[in-house]
Amino acid sequence: MHQMTIPVTFGDCDPAGLVFYPNFLRWFDTSFQNILSARGFDQRRIQERFDAVGTGVMDVKSSFRAPVRYGDDLTIVSRIASYSNRSFEVTHEASVDGRLCVEALEIRGLFAMRDGRLKALDITPIKALLEHATS
Amino acid sequence: MHQMTIPVTFGDCDPAGLVFYPNFLRWFDTSFQNILSARGFDQRRIQERFDAVGTGVMDVKSSFRAPVRYGDDLTIVSRIASYSNRSFEVTHEASVDGRLCVEALEIRGLFAMRDGRLKALDITPIKALLEHATS
Amino acid sequence: MHQMTIPVTFGDCDPAGLVFYPNFLRWFDTSFQNILSARGFDQRRIQERFDAVGTGVMDVKSSFRAPVRYGDDLTIVSRIASYSNRSFEVTHEASVDGRLCVEALEIRGLFAMRDGRLKALDITPIKALLEHATS
Amino acid sequence: MHQMTIPVTFGDCDPAGLVFYPNFLRWFDTSFQNILSARGFDQRRIQERFDAVGTGVMDVKSSFRAPVRYGDDLTIVSRIASYSNRSFEVTHEASVDGRLCVEALEIRGLFAMRDGRLKALDITPIKALLEHATS
Repeated sequence: MHQMTIPVTFGDCDPAGLVFYPNFLRWFDTSFQNILSARGFDQRRIQERFDAVGTGVMDVKSSFRAPVRYGDDLTIVSRIASYSNRSFEVTHEASVDGRLCVEALEIRGLFAMRDGRLKALDITPIKALLEHATS
Repeated sequence: MHQMTIPVTFGDCDPAGLVFYPNFLRWFDTSFQNILSARGFDQRRIQERFDAVGTGVMDVKSSFRAPVRYGDDLTIVSRIASYSNRSFEVTHEASVDGRLCVEALEIRGLFAMRDGRLKALDITPIKALLEHATS
Repeated sequence: MHQMTIPVTFGDCDPAGLVFYPNFLRWFDTSFQNILSARGFDQRRIQERFDAVGTGVMDVKSSFRAPVRYGDDLTIVSRIASYSNRSFEVTHEASVDGRLCVEALEIRGLFAMRDGRLKALDITPIKALLEHATS
Repeated sequence: MHQMTIPVTFGDCDPAGLVFYPNFLRWFDTSFQNILSARGFDQRRIQERFDAVGTGVMDVKSSFRAPVRYGDDLTIVSRIASYSNRSFEVTHEASVDGRLCVEALEIRGLFAMRDGRLKALDITPIKALLEHATS
């Protein structure tokens, strides 16, 4: 689990005064990268260790339940929720003053160039490393 | 239906040389705004006409099927796929050289401040205007 | 003076693995907005108080002395350096591990719509409020 | 010389309804990359050809003369204005309806890792190639 707080600033918002929605996805990606770095990983180390391009998003689903405004402090709680063979799920919950505003579910994989194509690798080795790091 | 082509540039891509994924959502939003403007609408006119904050995304689902790289020409085809009472669906398909790379489904609503809260309005009037504009 | 630290993340960087340079300007803007909010101001309050559109940048000059990379912690120190009649200067210094990497000088004004045009207002009143707030 | 037109969209603008200023620098970078690609170059080819990290900005100076708004069509004209030993100057002029709104001068270099440090290379070879490409 990783938690961070984003003070929503002027430039994050659109002419309606609300967060321009792709920014939430940008922050969710940051939060995921922070999960990795809290466990001693980053995209560079993943590239080297697994001869990979890095982790990447295969699917994302996000719901916007309440508006987030310029001046709000947005708290994002992210976790790796589950693992399957070639992907893992990351969840994000973003709240302001304890009120859930945005949630997202990302399905991510570990990708590498093999025979000129980007392929999703077996994630067993990275899973072991990530879980070991947390225990 | 609206189509546009984005020449993917250096700054759109991450250290893996692939499009940083929130940028796709940014382009999908641009493409949706272009649907509106092709019909004579923009967020300002919507605000005035409906005493609204504007249209906003309630849910988004996106799948990343193939990598998009620096130097690719990304063609995005977007359409308003369906309407219900308080929302409408917008689909986006992004391809490179005819190969589908990313798709998305957004559920959008028309929002207004009523009694101090953001509420989804009945979209019948905007639907009529948008459909009239296209016929 | 305002100081903040940005952990440079994957999505802030370009395919060369270095911060995509407009992001520095984005962070400098955030840092300036933080100067305001530390003094009890934000763009909304400025709009209301001065019947203004807000503060805006008239000129910016920035020098990039050393590369900033994915994984770096970037510390930004910003201050309002001086005031003249219709503008004020904001300086930003961004360092990694004590090494100055980027600096910038922004000339900002307080803008309002008057007779259908955006005009730079006399900044004496905002100067008084900002200085009072810090003393 | 390279010219492009950006239809300014909703998400490019801040709560004041004006373009959030770092976006101009983002577009200027795109316009510079387009100068390169019009001459058959991109950052990847530059990396390979010169064993370089790529071109990068050393200094930028930009003036914001008139506001640019959501819905404006922004025309950007960019050119490589001059070359010196280890840098070259790129100018950008951005106008709406023929009215100059933003201008910028970038000093750029060609950078490579040499002995563990980023160094500005002699640009004579790239100058020859760029000038040859245009003639």
